Amino acid sequence: MHFGSDNQAGASEQIFSFLQQANQGIEAAYGDDQWTARAVQAIKDWFEYDAEVFLVSTGTAANSMALACLCDPWDSVLCHGQAHIINDELTAPEFFTGGARLIGLDTQQAKLTLQTVRETLELGAAHPPHNAVPKALSLTQINESGQVYSPEEVKAFSNLAHDHGLHVHMDGARFANALEALGCSPAELTWKAGVDVLCLGATKNGALAAEAVVFFNRTLARHFVQHRKRSGHLLSKGRWMGAQFCGWLADDHWRTLARQANQCAQSLANAIEAHPLTHLVWPVKANELFVRLPKSLIQQLRDDGAVFYEWPRNFVPESLIIEDDEDIVRMVTSFQTRQEDVEQFIALLNQHR
Amino acid sequence: MHFGSDNQAGASEQIFSFLQQANQGIEAAYGDDQWTARAVQAIKDWFEYDAEVFLVSTGTAANSMALACLCDPWDSVLCHGQAHIINDELTAPEFFTGGARLIGLDTQQAKLTLQTVRETLELGAAHPPHNAVPKALSLTQINESGQVYSPEEVKAFSNLAHDHGLHVHMDGARFANALEALGCSPAELTWKAGVDVLCLGATKNGALAAEAVVFFNRTLARHFVQHRKRSGHLLSKGRWMGAQFCGWLADDHWRTLARQANQCAQSLANAIEAHPLTHLVWPVKANELFVRLPKSLIQQLRDDGAVFYEWPRNFVPESLIIEDDEDIVRMVTSFQTRQEDVEQFIALLNQHR
Amino acid sequence: MHFGSDNQAGASEQIFSFLQQANQGIEAAYGDDQWTARAVQAIKDWFEYDAEVFLVSTGTAANSMALACLCDPWDSVLCHGQAHIINDELTAPEFFTGGARLIGLDTQQAKLTLQTVRETLELGAAHPPHNAVPKALSLTQINESGQVYSPEEVKAFSNLAHDHGLHVHMDGARFANALEALGCSPAELTWKAGVDVLCLGATKNGALAAEAVVFFNRTLARHFVQHRKRSGHLLSKGRWMGAQFCGWLADDHWRTLARQANQCAQSLANAIEAHPLTHLVWPVKANELFVRLPKSLIQQLRDDGAVFYEWPRNFVPESLIIEDDEDIVRMVTSFQTRQEDVEQFIALLNQHR
Amino acid sequence: MHFGSDNQAGASEQIFSFLQQANQGIEAAYGDDQWTARAVQAIKDWFEYDAEVFLVSTGTAANSMALACLCDPWDSVLCHGQAHIINDELTAPEFFTGGARLIGLDTQQAKLTLQTVRETLELGAAHPPHNAVPKALSLTQINESGQVYSPEEVKAFSNLAHDHGLHVHMDGARFANALEALGCSPAELTWKAGVDVLCLGATKNGALAAEAVVFFNRTLARHFVQHRKRSGHLLSKGRWMGAQFCGWLADDHWRTLARQANQCAQSLANAIEAHPLTHLVWPVKANELFVRLPKSLIQQLRDDGAVFYEWPRNFVPESLIIEDDEDIVRMVTSFQTRQEDVEQFIALLNQHR
Repeated sequence: MHFGSDNQAGASEQIFSFLQQANQGIEAAYGDDQWTARAVQAIKDWFEYDAEVFLVSTGTAANSMALACLCDPWDSVLCHGQAHIINDELTAPEFFTGGARLIGLDTQQAKLTLQTVRETLELGAAHPPHNAVPKALSLTQINESGQVYSPEEVKAFSNLAHDHGLHVHMDGARFANALEALGCSPAELTWKAGVDVLCLGATKNGALAAEAVVFFNRTLARHFVQHRKRSGHLLSKGRWMGAQFCGWLADDHWRTLARQANQCAQSLANAIEAHPLTHLVWPVKANELFVRLPKSLIQQLRDDGAVFYEWPRNFVPESLIIEDDEDIVRMVTSFQTRQEDVEQFIALLNQHR
Repeated sequence: MHFGSDNQAGASEQIFSFLQQANQGIEAAYGDDQWTARAVQAIKDWFEYDAEVFLVSTGTAANSMALACLCDPWDSVLCHGQAHIINDELTAPEFFTGGARLIGLDTQQAKLTLQTVRETLELGAAHPPHNAVPKALSLTQINESGQVYSPEEVKAFSNLAHDHGLHVHMDGARFANALEALGCSPAELTWKAGVDVLCLGATKNGALAAEAVVFFNRTLARHFVQHRKRSGHLLSKGRWMGAQFCGWLADDHWRTLARQANQCAQSLANAIEAHPLTHLVWPVKANELFVRLPKSLIQQLRDDGAVFYEWPRNFVPESLIIEDDEDIVRMVTSFQTRQEDVEQFIALLNQHR
Repeated sequence: MHFGSDNQAGASEQIFSFLQQANQGIEAAYGDDQWTARAVQAIKDWFEYDAEVFLVSTGTAANSMALACLCDPWDSVLCHGQAHIINDELTAPEFFTGGARLIGLDTQQAKLTLQTVRETLELGAAHPPHNAVPKALSLTQINESGQVYSPEEVKAFSNLAHDHGLHVHMDGARFANALEALGCSPAELTWKAGVDVLCLGATKNGALAAEAVVFFNRTLARHFVQHRKRSGHLLSKGRWMGAQFCGWLADDHWRTLARQANQCAQSLANAIEAHPLTHLVWPVKANELFVRLPKSLIQQLRDDGAVFYEWPRNFVPESLIIEDDEDIVRMVTSFQTRQEDVEQFIALLNQHR
Repeated sequence: MHFGSDNQAGASEQIFSFLQQANQGIEAAYGDDQWTARAVQAIKDWFEYDAEVFLVSTGTAANSMALACLCDPWDSVLCHGQAHIINDELTAPEFFTGGARLIGLDTQQAKLTLQTVRETLELGAAHPPHNAVPKALSLTQINESGQVYSPEEVKAFSNLAHDHGLHVHMDGARFANALEALGCSPAELTWKAGVDVLCLGATKNGALAAEAVVFFNRTLARHFVQHRKRSGHLLSKGRWMGAQFCGWLADDHWRTLARQANQCAQSLANAIEAHPLTHLVWPVKANELFVRLPKSLIQQLRDDGAVFYEWPRNFVPESLIIEDDEDIVRMVTSFQTRQEDVEQFIALLNQHR
C-alpha cells in the first residue's frame, strides 16, 4: 500500500523495453542520436506544434532552465505560495536564473486566482530599477494540491500575464495526469491556452528520468543549449532519454499510465469521502489526495502497512480549521498502484470507524 | 518644503570640512589610508566593541555583502514583507549571496512579530536538501514604516534567531535616527542585543555616501574583503569614505543631525494628528511619517509646493481601511529640514480644513 | 570502424542487466534507495576508504560540483591548458563555483609539469584581495592527450599543491582506463597519492550515465548535497544510477571493459607506428590515440568507413611541427570496439603506403 | 618622491571646488540630479557623440558592468595576459557577467598583437555548446605596461573583433593620459576607431572616485541600469559623482592634469635612459615607467625616500633577460607629482653611478 509518491515506482515495462532497444550499437553523442531526434519529433506531433524541444533528466533542471530562458537575473517570477519551484527545489531557480526572485502568492486557496495575480501586477514594481519586475507567471499541472487548471483558466492567466509583459511557464511534472483528468488535448492545455514553455514530466508517470522542456514561444529557447551544457545537463549518451520519451508516447502509453493512477486515486477518494473520520481537503482531480484525519487513525493505518506522508500544516489555508488531534496527509497513486492495494487500504479504513 | 527623502540633502558642513581636510597630500590606496583607519577606530569606540568594520559607499552594497557573509547560496533570509532589502534593492541580495532567497513575512503590522518569525521557523524547511533553510533574520532600524525596535525587542528576536541557527542582520540605514528616538547607546541596540552584523548608514544622516558594515560576530566577516573587491566596492581613494565617518562621529555630530530630523518629524506629526482630515498611519518614532489623507488635499499641498511621495496601497495591512478618495503619503525629514519648512507646511495644512 | 569517442557506445550487457533488476518494485526516492546505498558501499570498498560518495549523471556536473566544493567564487583553479574542464564544459565550472577562475597552464607538453605549477604558485597572487588565489589543482586521468600520471607523479603534484594550500581534484572520466594502464589499485592512484576528490566516470567505460564524486577529504564534501540539489542533479529515481555502478564494479567488470578498450588502442598504435605515413603524436597509454598523418590519407580512411575526429592544431605544442599537408586526428577505442574493427582499420591503413 | 600610483593623490582643487558647489541644497536622488545630467551631457559633448553614459565610483565596477553588458555567462573575453581585468580585479568580471571567462593572451610583448587575437579566434571555439565563445575583446588605454594603442591600431583590432562577432571594450582607467600622449581627440580614439564601450576613468587623473561607462554602441547599454542597481553601485546622492566629472571636463582640466603627469614621467624617463645602471623595460608613452635596475640601487633609492613598487617578474616576457641581481620596478606619476620630486629623484639617481 505505497502511496508515498509517484516517483518511487520504476519505469514501465514498455518504456524499459525501448531503453533496451536503444542500447544497441553506436550512436552520436550529446543528443545527436536518432532516439533523441525521434523523441523530439514525437513530442512535436503530440502537441501538433513545431515547438523547440529539449530533453533533461530532472524536473528541477527543466523548470529552472525554462525560467532562466524567461527571466533576467533582476526579474521576478510569480507562482503559488506552495509551488514546487519555490518549496521543493532548494534555490535552483535562483541558481539558474542568476538570481531572479520567486514570489509565492498567498491566495488562501489551493490554486492561483486571477485576482491575486492581477493585484500583484498592478501594485508592484512601480519604481524601476529599484523593484524587481515580474517577468514570468508559473502554473503547475496538476498543481501541488492536486488541482487542475482547465484550458479556459490557463487561457485567462496567460492573457493577464501577457498583457503585463510576463511569459507563462507551466510546470507539468504531472501533465499527463492533468490531461487525463481534463480530457483535453495536449495542444488545448498549452499553446492554444497561451503557455510559452511547458516542462513536461514523464518521470513521475512511468519513465526513469525523462523531462522535456517544450518551448511554444520559440524565441525564448534561444539560449537553452547553453544553459543545459553549462549546468552539466547535456548527457553524452542522449539515447537513453530519447528512448524513454519514445516509449512513453508510443500507442498513447502515457495515457494508460496516467489513467491507472487517476482511477486508483478516485477509488480512494470515494472511500475517504464516505468515511466519517476522514475528509478530503481538496477535491481529488487526478492522482493526489490530501486527507484530513485523526492522528490516531494515521498511526493505525501505518501500523497496518499503509505508506503516505504528512503534509505541512502551514500549507493549508487558515480558513480550514484543523483540530489538534488531526493532521493532514498526502497520498499519491501511480501507474504501479494496483487495484488490490487500493482495496486493501479501503478495507483497512473501514475497520476503523 | 522638501519631505521627499533624507537622501536628497547634501553633506553637512562638518562632514564636508573633514572631506576637505582629507583631500590633502598622498595617502595609501585601497583603504590603507589614515582616514579609513581613524574611522574604523572611531566606530569601534562608538560601539565599545572590537568589531570588524568595513566601509562601503551604498546601503544596498552594505546590506547585500553583509547577507553574503551570513548565508550560503542555498539558504534563505527572513525579513518583513516591506523590508528595503526585498523591495528596493532590485535583486542585489540574490546577486551577492549567489542566489539565497529573501522571504518577506506578512505580519499585517508595521513591524516583524516574534510569533510570525517563530511560526515560519517551526513550520518550514523540514526536508533538506529540498527546502531552503533560513540562515539570517534581518531587522531594519528605523524600519520601512518608520518604526523602531527597542533593545529588548531586538534581544528577543536575536534569541529566537540564534536558537534556530540564524544570524541576525540589522539594516541601519537610519540607525542614528533610531538611536536618537530610543535614547539608548549604540552598544545596547546592537551587540548587547545579539545583533551579529549591522549596516550602519551615514548617507541618509548627513554624509555624501558612507556606510559601515560592522561585524560584532567577527567570524562572519572572514570573506568580506573578497566580496567587496569583486563587487567593485573597494575604492582606491579610501580616504574620502573614512573622512566622512570621522566627521560624522566627531563631537556627536550624528546625534545633532538625527535630532534635527526627528524633531521636525515630531512637529509635523503633532499638526497632522490634530488635523481633522489627516491621520497618521503609524506612530511617528523618528524621521518618517506615513499619513492618510484625502486625494484632494494631497493635490492642494503639492500645488502649494510641498514635496512628498505616495506610498503603495499594498504596503498597508488590510486591517487599515482606506477610503477610495484617500491615499497614503510618506514624508521624510532630514538634518537639512528647516524649522520654517515645517511651519510653512503646518500653516498650509491648516488652511485646508 | 568507430573510433569517434567512447561515449558513443551504449551500456554493457552486464550493466544493463543490473538496470533491469533495479527497475522492479517500489524504492525510496532521491537517492535513499537500496541501489544507491549498495553502489556507495561498493565504491568505498573498491577504494579501501571510507570516502563521501555521491552519484551524478554527467562528468561536467561531477567536475563542476567537485570544484565548487573546493573553491570560493574568488579563487582560481590550475589545470592543463587542454583540460576538459577548461575546454569542453562551456563555463560550467564558473557557473557552479559562482565565478571562480580556471587557469589553463601552457606546458608545451602533453601533461602538467611540476615546474610550471610551481612557478605559477610562486609568482602569482601576491596582492590579495586584488588577485585570485589558486585553491585547487586539477589533474585528468587519463588526460586529454591520452597520457597517464603515475601514483608517484600524482603524489608529487599533491604535495606541491597541499604545500601551497591547494586541494587536489582528479577528473577521472577515464579513470578505469588509467588504472588498467598503470596496473595499480584505485587507492594507490587516489587517496594514497594525496587526491582530495575524484570524479570517477563510468559513462565512458560501459555505463549509460553514471559518475561518482568521491571525496577522500571528507570535510570538503559538506555542501555537496546542496550543490547537487540546486543544480537539478538529484534524481528522484536514484536506483538507476546506483544500479549502473553496482554492475560496473561487480566481478571487476570495469576492468574487463577498460582492458578491451586499451588493448584495441595498443593494436592500433602498433600499426600506426609501423606505418611510414602515420605518426603517434603522444605515446599511447590507454584508449586514446593522437595521430599525425597526411590530409589525403585522412580522407581515404574516411571514405573507407573509418570514423574519428580531427584535433585542433593549437592543442599541439609549437615544438611539434605539422606539415601543411598534414593534420592530427584523435581516435578513441571503447569496450564495444571489436577486434575485427581494429583489424579492418589496420588493413585499410596498410593499403595506403 | 611618491611614484607609487596615481590613485594615491587626492582630488584636484578644481574638482574639489565643484564638489563643494554641488553640495548645496536639495537634489533628486539616484542620479536624477542636475549634476549628473550636466556631467552626462559634458561627456557626450566631449566625445562628439550621443552615447549612453553612466557614472560609477570604481574602475572595477565600470569594467565589470561593461563586460556584463557585452557577454552572456557562457561567453569569453579576450584580453592581454597582464590586463587589469584579469590580474587586479579578483574575479569581479566573472561575478558581474555571471561566469563568463577571461582569456589572457600571452603575446610575449607589452601589447596585444593582431596576430595573437586572430589565431585565437580562428582556432578556438569550434564545437558549440562545448566551448566558450569569445564575445568581447578588451584593450586598455594606456595599458598595464604603460603603452598606448594608436587610433589606427584600435581600428584594426575593432575590425578584427567585429568581423568575428566580438564587441570591443576599452578599459580607459588612464584614458586622459593616453589622449595627451597621442594628441588625438576622444572621438578618434573611441567610436571612430570602432570601440563599443569605454570605461573612462577620472579617479586616477584628479578625481576622488569617478568613472564613466560610455556606450557608443547604445544597444549594448540596455541593461546597464539593472546591473548598476543590483550591484549596489547606484549612489543615492548622485550629485557628487556628477560634480567630479563636471569639474574634470571644465576648461580642459583633464588635459592639464594628464599633461603634468605625462611630462614628469618623460623627465624621469630621460634620466633613467641616460643612466648606466637603469634601463627602461618599455618605452615611456604616458605616466607609467617600468625600469630594470640593480636590487642594490632599488634599496638605495628607497632608503633615500623614493616610493615605487616592484613589478612581478612573470609580467615580463622571457625574451627580456633579467639578471639575478636585478629587479623591475614600476613608477607612476600623477597630476600631483611636483617638478621638485622629479628633480630630487634624478639627483639621487645620479649619485649612484
